[in-house]
Amino acid sequence: MPNIAQTPPPPYYAVIFTSLRTEGDNGYDAMAQRMLELASRQQGFLGVESAREELGITVSYWESLEAIRSWKQHSEHQEAQKLGHEVWYTEFKVRIARIERDYGI
Amino acid sequence: MPNIAQTPPPPYYAVIFTSLRTEGDNGYDAMAQRMLELASRQQGFLGVESAREELGITVSYWESLEAIRSWKQHSEHQEAQKLGHEVWYTEFKVRIARIERDYGI
Repeated sequence: MPNIAQTPPPPYYAVIFTSLRTEGDNGYDAMAQRMLELASRQQGFLGVESAREELGITVSYWESLEAIRSWKQHSEHQEAQKLGHEVWYTEFKVRIARIERDYGI
Repeated sequence: MPNIAQTPPPPYYAVIFTSLRTEGDNGYDAMAQRMLELASRQQGFLGVESAREELGITVSYWESLEAIRSWKQHSEHQEAQKLGHEVWYTEFKVRIARIERDYGI
């Protein structure tokens, strides 16, 4: 995911997911890849940006809060969330945000 | 900045800064460090999270839109923004967001 997301004019919504990983892969990379693919096929998905050093940050962009809610409740995503809690993350924070304006080059 | 920001209960605000760098340092690392220090001393600053692979993502958190505006207009920060445009970034996007809710472990 090396690109800056090509999002429409605001308003739209974002999920800012910040995390610290446990040691070892434990199936994480394959699941992360699968979740990116699956998310990108959901209704209302607008784009995603991701980077990790020690801290990982993934920001996904959505048309509506309803789209975010549906994705959170997707059954495969629920499985991933459960493993995230139990296996992959020592700490994480999810922030739901409304994008008010944007600019750039 | 290896920690997840310890932010207060929502609502609060975020600046999501996503960027792709040019080749070479060209004074970037020192300025980035200086801007983090300076930002963290501004009124209304709540925290910051940052990670870079190819894509860089920095999310800073603020009490209000007014605090974000003041920081954008800070003279040293304006210098950094100018160099960002001219030297350090091939592409960037700034998104101003209102955090509506959050959760985590």
